[in-house]
Amino acid sequence: MTTMPKIAPSSAVPSTTPRAVEFRLDNGMTVVVVPDHRAPVVHHMVWYRVGSSDEVPGKTGIAHFLEHLMFKGTEKIGPGQFSKIIARNGGQDNAFTSNDSTAYFQAVAKDRLELVMDMEADRMVNLKLEKSQVETERNVILEERRSRIENDPAAQLDEQMHAALYVNHPYRMPVIGWFHEVAALSREDAFAYYHRYYAPNNAILVVAGDVEPDDVLRLAKATYGKVPANAASLRNPRPVEPPAVAPRRIEMVDERAGQATISRDYPAPCYPRAKPREAEALDLLGKILAGGPTSRLYKALVVDQKLASSIDGGYSGEALDSGRIGLHGVASDGVPLADLEKAMDKVIDGIAVNGVSANELELARNQYLASYIYESDGIGALARRYGWGMVNGQTIADIEDWPNRLRTVTAEDVRVAAVNYLVSKASVTGWLQPPAGLAS
Amino acid sequence: MTTMPKIAPSSAVPSTTPRAVEFRLDNGMTVVVVPDHRAPVVHHMVWYRVGSSDEVPGKTGIAHFLEHLMFKGTEKIGPGQFSKIIARNGGQDNAFTSNDSTAYFQAVAKDRLELVMDMEADRMVNLKLEKSQVETERNVILEERRSRIENDPAAQLDEQMHAALYVNHPYRMPVIGWFHEVAALSREDAFAYYHRYYAPNNAILVVAGDVEPDDVLRLAKATYGKVPANAASLRNPRPVEPPAVAPRRIEMVDERAGQATISRDYPAPCYPRAKPREAEALDLLGKILAGGPTSRLYKALVVDQKLASSIDGGYSGEALDSGRIGLHGVASDGVPLADLEKAMDKVIDGIAVNGVSANELELARNQYLASYIYESDGIGALARRYGWGMVNGQTIADIEDWPNRLRTVTAEDVRVAAVNYLVSKASVTGWLQPPAGLAS
Repeated sequence: MTTMPKIAPSSAVPSTTPRAVEFRLDNGMTVVVVPDHRAPVVHHMVWYRVGSSDEVPGKTGIAHFLEHLMFKGTEKIGPGQFSKIIARNGGQDNAFTSNDSTAYFQAVAKDRLELVMDMEADRMVNLKLEKSQVETERNVILEERRSRIENDPAAQLDEQMHAALYVNHPYRMPVIGWFHEVAALSREDAFAYYHRYYAPNNAILVVAGDVEPDDVLRLAKATYGKVPANAASLRNPRPVEPPAVAPRRIEMVDERAGQATISRDYPAPCYPRAKPREAEALDLLGKILAGGPTSRLYKALVVDQKLASSIDGGYSGEALDSGRIGLHGVASDGVPLADLEKAMDKVIDGIAVNGVSANELELARNQYLASYIYESDGIGALARRYGWGMVNGQTIADIEDWPNRLRTVTAEDVRVAAVNYLVSKASVTGWLQPPAGLAS
Repeated sequence: MTTMPKIAPSSAVPSTTPRAVEFRLDNGMTVVVVPDHRAPVVHHMVWYRVGSSDEVPGKTGIAHFLEHLMFKGTEKIGPGQFSKIIARNGGQDNAFTSNDSTAYFQAVAKDRLELVMDMEADRMVNLKLEKSQVETERNVILEERRSRIENDPAAQLDEQMHAALYVNHPYRMPVIGWFHEVAALSREDAFAYYHRYYAPNNAILVVAGDVEPDDVLRLAKATYGKVPANAASLRNPRPVEPPAVAPRRIEMVDERAGQATISRDYPAPCYPRAKPREAEALDLLGKILAGGPTSRLYKALVVDQKLASSIDGGYSGEALDSGRIGLHGVASDGVPLADLEKAMDKVIDGIAVNGVSANELELARNQYLASYIYESDGIGALARRYGWGMVNGQTIADIEDWPNRLRTVTAEDVRVAAVNYLVSKASVTGWLQPPAGLAS
C-alpha cells in the first residue's frame, strides 16, 4: 500500500531544502507537512510516541493488540467500517506497531484528506470496543503469532536472540507479545493503554503529498485540534542495560529448519543516542560488512570460500534507546556452522583491525545516497522517514541533513565504530539447523 | 549467627508432631510458634511476602536496599541503634532478601523476646530515614556489589545465567540489583516499597525456641497486633515464562578466572507449584546426580574419568514460581570444557534413559532424612524451615509432612523428573575460563 501508482510529474516546482514544515497545535500535537506536488495524492500518518517497550510486565502485546482494535469503530464510525470507508474513497490504510512507536496511515486522493483527518482524530479519543470484538481480534492475533512465530523456527530463534541481546531493556520482549500473555489480554487492558497513551500531545501528524502546509494546519486545527491534551500520556523512561559481560549463544535444533543458518547480533547506539557521525558510520559499516553481494562477508564467504549460500545484514538505528547490527548467513550444503562462524569472525575482526578502504566507503555511501534519493520519490516513504525520525526525537533539520552527515563520515569513523561495537562480549550468536545436520 | 551455643538438653519433654502452632492476628498477621525447650533461647523471625521479584522495572535492588535501611531507626530507636540494642541484650540479629521474601531475625535469650518483638513491630511502620543515611547505605551496597559481583567473574557469569534462564519472569534479575540502578535508588523509592509492602497482613512471624504458643500469641497481640493492616500490600502476580525453545550458552573469558569451570541450569517446578511428590523427586534427583562424592557426576567425572577436579549441584525448590536444578564442575588441568561437558551430558542423559537404582535412591533419601533431623536440632534452622515454607504458601502440615512424602518417592518418580526437567532445550550452560585456557 505504500507504493503509489506512477503518475507523470505535475508541472509544480520541485521542493527545495528545507522540504518539510513543522507546526505545533495548542493541545501539543506536532504537525509535519512534506509538500510534494507531482501527483494529486496524500499520505497521511499519525505516529504515537508509545510502543511495545512501554508495556507493563506481564502484558506484552497490548500495544499491537490495541493497534488492531483501533479499526473497530467509534460513535461515528460503525464496527469494522474504518478501512471500508477509506477503500470506498479510493484509498488504502494500515497501521504498524514497533518497540517505540505506533503509526496509523492512509494513502488517499488529496480531496479526501479532510475526511481521513476527521476519522483519525475521532478514533484518537472515541474508540468503542465490544467485548466480543475484543475476543475475536485476540484470536486473530494469536493465529498471527502462531503462523508467524510458533510455526517458523527462524522467527522463534530471532525472538530468543532479542531476549538474550538485552538483559534489562524491554527491547528484549517481542512486539507481538508472548503467546500466553496475549491470550490473557482484555478489553480493560486495551482501554487502560489507550487512555494513558493516545492523546494529541503524544502524537505526531505527518502529511506528505500534494498539499500546502497552511491548508494542512487549518485542517489539523479543525480536527485534531479539538482533542484535549492528556498530561499523563508521556511514557516513563525505560530500564537501561548494564555493561555486557560475556557473549551469549543459542543453538536451536528444529526439524522444520531448512539449511543451517547462523545469526549474529551486536547492540550499537541508535540515531538519537549516538555521538556525532557515529550512527552514520554504523550505517556504512553495516553496508560494507554485509549489505549485498559487494559486501565483505558476501565476497569472502559466498564467493571466495563458498562456505555460505547467502549472507546479509546491516545496522538498524531507527530506535529510541538502542540500535543493533545484525548479520545472517545460510551455510552451504554440508558446511558445519562452526566453520562458517569461524570464517565470519575472521572477516568481522579484520574490519576492526584494518579498517575499510576508500573504495568500499564510497561504494557504500553512494548506495545509501542513491536509495535515499530513490526513496524520496515516494510520498509514503517520505512520510515514514519524517515520522520515524520525529517519533524518535530527531528534528526536521536532523532528518534532512542526514545525506550531508553521511558524506562527512571517514574511513576512520567506520573503523572506530567497528572497534567499539563489533564486540564479541556484547554479542548474541544464534544457530539454527535440523537434527540431522547437527554440527559437532 | 544461626548456630546457637550447644547447651545440654533441658528436662522438658521433646516436642511431638504436629510440632508448630499457627495463629492469625486480627490485622491478618500470621504467627507460627515452634516450641523447643532444650535451651532458654528463642529465634525470632519476621518474613515479608515480598522480595526482589516484586520490584518495578528499572528499580532493581530496592528490596535489598530497604532491608539494609530497616536498621537505620525509628522514633523510638535511634539511628543505627537497632542491632546495638540486640547485642547489648546478648543477642544477634541480621536479615536477608530473596527473590520472593525478605526476613529479619534475632537470636536472644527467652526473656528478651518481648523487647525484640516490640522493636520489630515498631520498625514495621515507623521507619525513619535521613537522606544522608540513605546515601551512605547506598554506597555500602554498591561496594558490596562491586566486591561480590563485579570483582568475581564466577558471580558475574551466575548473574548472566539467571538472566538467560528466565526470558520473562523477574527471577532473571539479580536480587542485589544492577549496579547502575542501585546507584540511582532514592529515599523515596525505599519508602514507596516500604509503605506498599511492609504490613502485618503481608508478614509471617516465626518464633522457635523455649516458648509456649499462648505466650507468644499474647506478646504478638500486644506488639504486632497494634500495627494496622494495609489491604494494598499484597503483591501482583509475576509474569509467566513462555515455553522454552532452544538451549542458551554463555561463554565467558576472563583474566581473573582460575580453573576453567562449567555450570548448567535447568528450570524445574518449585515446591508450591509441583505435582504431588514431584519436588521431592527433584530433591532426590539432584542429590543422586550431583550431591557430593557419592553422586553419579562426581563418580564418573572426578573419580573415574578424572576430567573434573570437583562437581556439585542439586535442586532448589524453595521458591514461589519456579525452582532450578543447578550443576557446577571445575575442569581438571588441561581438560577442555567441551570434553567435560560432553562427558557430563552423557551422565545426565543416562539418568533419564535408565533411571536410578534402589541403592542410589535409598542413599540419597537417607542423606536427606539425616540432614533433616540434624537440622531440626537448631532452632535457627527450624525457624527458617517454617518461614521458607509458609512464605511460599505451604501449610504447617505440608512442611511437617515432608519427610513422609520423601519416603514415598519411587525410583520411577525420579526417572520421570529427569525426563521432564533435565531437558536441553530449557537449559543454560555457562563456561568460564581464562584467555589462555580457551578451549576450541
